[in-house]
Amino acid sequence: MAQVRKIINDPVYGFITIDHPLVMEIISHPYYQRLRRIHQMAFASLVYPGAVHTRLHHSLGAYHLMGLAISELRNKGTEITPDEELAAKIAILLHDIGHGPYSHALERKLIRGVHHEEISTLILELLNDKFGGELDLAIEIFKGTYHKKFLHQLVSGQLDVDRMDYLSRDSFYTGVSEGVIGYDRILKMLVVHEGELMVEEKAIYSVEKFLVARRLMYWQVYLHKTVVAAEKMLVRTIDRAQELTAAGIDLPVASPALAFFLKEHQPDGNFLRHLEKFCQMDDTDIMCTLKQWGYYIDPVLGRLSRGLTDRRLLKIHYRNQPFTDAEVQEKRQEVMERLRLNEAEATYLAFAGEAKNTTYNPANEHIRILFKNNRVADISEVDNALIMQHMAAPVKKYYLCHLR
Amino acid sequence: MAQVRKIINDPVYGFITIDHPLVMEIISHPYYQRLRRIHQMAFASLVYPGAVHTRLHHSLGAYHLMGLAISELRNKGTEITPDEELAAKIAILLHDIGHGPYSHALERKLIRGVHHEEISTLILELLNDKFGGELDLAIEIFKGTYHKKFLHQLVSGQLDVDRMDYLSRDSFYTGVSEGVIGYDRILKMLVVHEGELMVEEKAIYSVEKFLVARRLMYWQVYLHKTVVAAEKMLVRTIDRAQELTAAGIDLPVASPALAFFLKEHQPDGNFLRHLEKFCQMDDTDIMCTLKQWGYYIDPVLGRLSRGLTDRRLLKIHYRNQPFTDAEVQEKRQEVMERLRLNEAEATYLAFAGEAKNTTYNPANEHIRILFKNNRVADISEVDNALIMQHMAAPVKKYYLCHLR
Amino acid sequence: MAQVRKIINDPVYGFITIDHPLVMEIISHPYYQRLRRIHQMAFASLVYPGAVHTRLHHSLGAYHLMGLAISELRNKGTEITPDEELAAKIAILLHDIGHGPYSHALERKLIRGVHHEEISTLILELLNDKFGGELDLAIEIFKGTYHKKFLHQLVSGQLDVDRMDYLSRDSFYTGVSEGVIGYDRILKMLVVHEGELMVEEKAIYSVEKFLVARRLMYWQVYLHKTVVAAEKMLVRTIDRAQELTAAGIDLPVASPALAFFLKEHQPDGNFLRHLEKFCQMDDTDIMCTLKQWGYYIDPVLGRLSRGLTDRRLLKIHYRNQPFTDAEVQEKRQEVMERLRLNEAEATYLAFAGEAKNTTYNPANEHIRILFKNNRVADISEVDNALIMQHMAAPVKKYYLCHLR
Amino acid sequence: MAQVRKIINDPVYGFITIDHPLVMEIISHPYYQRLRRIHQMAFASLVYPGAVHTRLHHSLGAYHLMGLAISELRNKGTEITPDEELAAKIAILLHDIGHGPYSHALERKLIRGVHHEEISTLILELLNDKFGGELDLAIEIFKGTYHKKFLHQLVSGQLDVDRMDYLSRDSFYTGVSEGVIGYDRILKMLVVHEGELMVEEKAIYSVEKFLVARRLMYWQVYLHKTVVAAEKMLVRTIDRAQELTAAGIDLPVASPALAFFLKEHQPDGNFLRHLEKFCQMDDTDIMCTLKQWGYYIDPVLGRLSRGLTDRRLLKIHYRNQPFTDAEVQEKRQEVMERLRLNEAEATYLAFAGEAKNTTYNPANEHIRILFKNNRVADISEVDNALIMQHMAAPVKKYYLCHLR
Repeated sequence: MAQVRKIINDPVYGFITIDHPLVMEIISHPYYQRLRRIHQMAFASLVYPGAVHTRLHHSLGAYHLMGLAISELRNKGTEITPDEELAAKIAILLHDIGHGPYSHALERKLIRGVHHEEISTLILELLNDKFGGELDLAIEIFKGTYHKKFLHQLVSGQLDVDRMDYLSRDSFYTGVSEGVIGYDRILKMLVVHEGELMVEEKAIYSVEKFLVARRLMYWQVYLHKTVVAAEKMLVRTIDRAQELTAAGIDLPVASPALAFFLKEHQPDGNFLRHLEKFCQMDDTDIMCTLKQWGYYIDPVLGRLSRGLTDRRLLKIHYRNQPFTDAEVQEKRQEVMERLRLNEAEATYLAFAGEAKNTTYNPANEHIRILFKNNRVADISEVDNALIMQHMAAPVKKYYLCHLR
Repeated sequence: MAQVRKIINDPVYGFITIDHPLVMEIISHPYYQRLRRIHQMAFASLVYPGAVHTRLHHSLGAYHLMGLAISELRNKGTEITPDEELAAKIAILLHDIGHGPYSHALERKLIRGVHHEEISTLILELLNDKFGGELDLAIEIFKGTYHKKFLHQLVSGQLDVDRMDYLSRDSFYTGVSEGVIGYDRILKMLVVHEGELMVEEKAIYSVEKFLVARRLMYWQVYLHKTVVAAEKMLVRTIDRAQELTAAGIDLPVASPALAFFLKEHQPDGNFLRHLEKFCQMDDTDIMCTLKQWGYYIDPVLGRLSRGLTDRRLLKIHYRNQPFTDAEVQEKRQEVMERLRLNEAEATYLAFAGEAKNTTYNPANEHIRILFKNNRVADISEVDNALIMQHMAAPVKKYYLCHLR
Repeated sequence: MAQVRKIINDPVYGFITIDHPLVMEIISHPYYQRLRRIHQMAFASLVYPGAVHTRLHHSLGAYHLMGLAISELRNKGTEITPDEELAAKIAILLHDIGHGPYSHALERKLIRGVHHEEISTLILELLNDKFGGELDLAIEIFKGTYHKKFLHQLVSGQLDVDRMDYLSRDSFYTGVSEGVIGYDRILKMLVVHEGELMVEEKAIYSVEKFLVARRLMYWQVYLHKTVVAAEKMLVRTIDRAQELTAAGIDLPVASPALAFFLKEHQPDGNFLRHLEKFCQMDDTDIMCTLKQWGYYIDPVLGRLSRGLTDRRLLKIHYRNQPFTDAEVQEKRQEVMERLRLNEAEATYLAFAGEAKNTTYNPANEHIRILFKNNRVADISEVDNALIMQHMAAPVKKYYLCHLR
Repeated sequence: MAQVRKIINDPVYGFITIDHPLVMEIISHPYYQRLRRIHQMAFASLVYPGAVHTRLHHSLGAYHLMGLAISELRNKGTEITPDEELAAKIAILLHDIGHGPYSHALERKLIRGVHHEEISTLILELLNDKFGGELDLAIEIFKGTYHKKFLHQLVSGQLDVDRMDYLSRDSFYTGVSEGVIGYDRILKMLVVHEGELMVEEKAIYSVEKFLVARRLMYWQVYLHKTVVAAEKMLVRTIDRAQELTAAGIDLPVASPALAFFLKEHQPDGNFLRHLEKFCQMDDTDIMCTLKQWGYYIDPVLGRLSRGLTDRRLLKIHYRNQPFTDAEVQEKRQEVMERLRLNEAEATYLAFAGEAKNTTYNPANEHIRILFKNNRVADISEVDNALIMQHMAAPVKKYYLCHLR
């Protein structure tokens, strides 16, 4: 047998098996390997030192869950051809391929005018060319244009394998064990009914637990105030660098690719020609640059950069009501006086904003329960539901961030 | 109470508690924070994608185990003062502070003439100055000059908390569950007898298991042939870069600090004045530089660098007998012809060497068993020992590495 | 040192340490050892085959958590004397000492007129006599009469170590991983304020998760319909046996102690004189008797008993509305015809009832959150609470159980 | 679809799936359900309180591993038909069906003249009759007469799924985490070569770890001196009961089935007619009887029985040399004087013996390694083997057991 068969150790699932040559080729491609150098959780490791896992690892994990999900659905009689299986697996493997350095934090900041999902699509199409059209079906599933809707819902939906993997993996690597979601049980309860992905009645409690675990992960980890402070600092660091650059200052930058996007790139509706350059960047370009900016003469750029490399973060306060202009202004004034900065400069070191998360929004999210009698209901509508209408409103927290 | 008390989540141990202001200050120091950017296992993540944890995380873990070990010994009547406890904890916290980028792989290559333990000592002394002598006792324990020998043995010995943490942590993050060592049971069995660290009789099987697990981790992970191939490639990449530099070529380098050590630094017996610069480097400087070298015109530097960033590694063979000159030469010839290189160049892409590991060497290692009747014996001498004399000889494997 | 120190392996917590001679003596007492033979989860193992752990193991686990809780509270400045610590640990160690065979299922059935907590108190006092009054303080804490209220709240309250252990242990042994509650984080967040046990503000999400996990464990495990069917069958089996006995039939019973409580014991307000006999019973008396009744000539007793020993359970239906008399009657009629029974007999094999559980009832439960500004609020009253007023109403499910 | 599909939660493997009606019927049979009441580890729970899992759970686990093993072998090109798969699964499911109460301890004691594997075969044949010959192939595989030898080797051999499950499960339930064997990796490395089961070359370290873990489990758990003391006490309790019975004394016994085997049964070469009675017994008959004997007038029977129910065990010493007759006699003398017993009686309470275990015996055990070049070698013959010739000799420990 000329069969490909590679087994990858994964602390979360034990083993991940790669058994198709096309999957192997995709994984071996430099664009995919680049994901080794993009952290899944950006600056969360400043709070949870174990959370240094990568987007490569996450997407391999999601690929593994896709295999389990498909196998479960087939056991329940849903027809999925080998081609569809392969395509769905490739779609999830590549769902994050368009992420840039410190993805969520820097999105729309470093690369203006282009969303990471557009970049993903561009890269998918580029790879499709390279692989002679073998990714056609994967792209259809990714975009949601394929007629078997449930395959797209597995890639991107309320109970998709992306979420299942990142919640499982992030809770594993942070050590926040309450974030554990019981992905295996939910997978066992998935079912396709009238072409749509649903869960069986007996999964109700597991799905409730899933939503509550997600809520907990948001507030305890993803929107942890220290993590948010670091991400906001990074955004402001890039802002400041671009401002200084615009003023004609030639800042040191660790790589030509990052230098291009920081200093030259203008959105022009034709991102395709910058794609190769984009794919040369990852978290190391940013971090290696921040280390140099930490010694730079501009006090704003220096403080922010050193703050990130040395974990000397701005102080951040959370509360349920917005901070008033006066409150923000007071902090800014302090900064101006202490560091002898003007107000524009002080704004980089004292600012306010909001963080929000919605536990479950039945308006645009749909976790459908299939009852034994074939009735279908949204999880927010079942008797004695824990997940209720009032959860549709996002929970907001307001923050004030300032120099210590 | 003005008590410091910080709880850090750790997926391996649950929680790590920091409860002394000096420990907090050390952890907050930029030299320590730098360890966030040095991977504990260098290129092992090319085989085990989960193994991306950092030296910061490892040293926090070892610090945690030190606390447990001290508490166990105290429960058994060994006197350890609060100052000694603090010092031992600081010694282990800082035991890896002198590691540079891709530590084991690049040691003695990037910084010639200085060993990482010398650098650790220099940094410890520098920090001691900064902290007004508060690290005196920690340094004594670190160096092994303190009269309570067992404290040094906990930092660096056959059953030290360094090994216990790295074996536990590395097996956790790689997912190689057979590497699990049962650190908690061994800790419970530690005992101090006549000033030396030993284990109680009933720990024999656990210690055997520990040694076998370590043996397994070496051959399955640390000396995994793919990992070894990557490390050897990195060494040769640096060699080639230094050769090209010596030939007057000005290679791009991501940071001034790395540029200094690659291009200018000469061992001069006074490393202290370069320490600050040394501490600006970490894995990101190397990786960000490799990405640029991957596009460089020199085919040797280009292939090696791209090989590391894109995981297109040299092929590697392991066997129990050395490869002959003829075998190596044959591979070199192939490379010369395929890439039109001269022999010196081809040597970078086809070479041989050896990897070795000793399971237990009673000549210089000592795991002492304390029997109930107060008899002390080396573990290799107990009845029915699994760990025998013949294990004193190192197991060697010979490799041949060459372009695919 | 004449110190007692025994380490017990526990798969849930790693190690449990016994380090006081009085605790050791209590554990060694036959009344405590009897708990080895009472399953923690009665018939849950018919659904979850791993759930065969014992009340002895659970109470050792709760004892372990009590130690951790006390140590945390002390670290936060709450004064707890060594005597109080010992007493609190003993109180929790013995909190289940009064359980009889198949405790929850058979309570108030086998021993009429006496509640298991009364029996616990009687046994505690008996042991206190034996140990020369050394259990005085433990009894005060157990009963809630000791002035440091929080100690009783740790034994029996909304966040007591009893619940923390049984939820952790039951989810561990059933393999229902979503039931995991993160006991370690909650313990770290406990605090005593104005003499009462509370949790710190940052524990809100963990406590929410705890309540949701408990809710899940109730419906997925404790009130799993198959488990409920088995428990109801056991109750009816005992009913039938007592009815036959009352009719003068001399049923075989595996032990004299069980024979006494089945055939002779009458509630007389003086249970103390039966205590020794009571403590001779455990799950094996019941199971060994059921095996004999399975061959007995009475078809009702035979079917019920064999159903339990051979896992041929009655069929059970759950729904949100009560079953009507007509529905129950129909099933009963079927049984009467099939087995040629009279209606009274058929009632044992076809019956209805209800199972209920309350997620969080702020009326009588109190999980208090201590905010940073020293404000105290019930968890149901914090902003954006998941745990709301409407959860005060118990969730009820109605069942209909009948011969297949 | 009339498909059977039942998912069972297992804390060790997550989920076990039953997907064939015949397997379901076998599991539902009272003979199989009886295994719920036989502890896998007999008295090990006296030392490891978590180790109360049952033979039913173990055999379900082994069945699960058989499915994984077969699926791996098929992936590697070994042909295994669906009928063979089903038969191999049934063979392992029923491999322990012949165990009686406190199996290993009481074997050849309670049922004299018949080995538990003979009883297993008898029961297999009885079930085969009941199921109309559907177990024919399973019986062939069980007995080792089927031409595909590797299927029998999976049921019973050096790397069979029975061992893999019991080592995994026993280490899980005892909490002796060093016993963990990495079953999943070994399963991935299984291969069939020339009709025999082997492991691939790269599994060498895992198999070494497996053997060392097994060695550890033997000495730390199965042959733990306290466990051995309890088992020897049980044997002597039965001996004494049979002696008293032979002397005409009518001891109380909890069940008619146990009474028959204790008092009446004589080996007569026709065990088949006692099979039904045999299958009525389990651990509860013994335990419920011991509780009654604990109050019996005979001091030997009383002490031994109470010792087991109340965990007041005989004292046991282990050493590497046999105890001399004089040493044993001295202890016996003490007992005679203290309890005013004659020598024959004292022998029950003071006796010596031996416990032994062989790490790896290449003479009759064969773990074969398949090298990449198709060479096959026994694991004890590979280069640098940890598992050596000298391990062929059993390790013996000698014990002396006596009243405290």
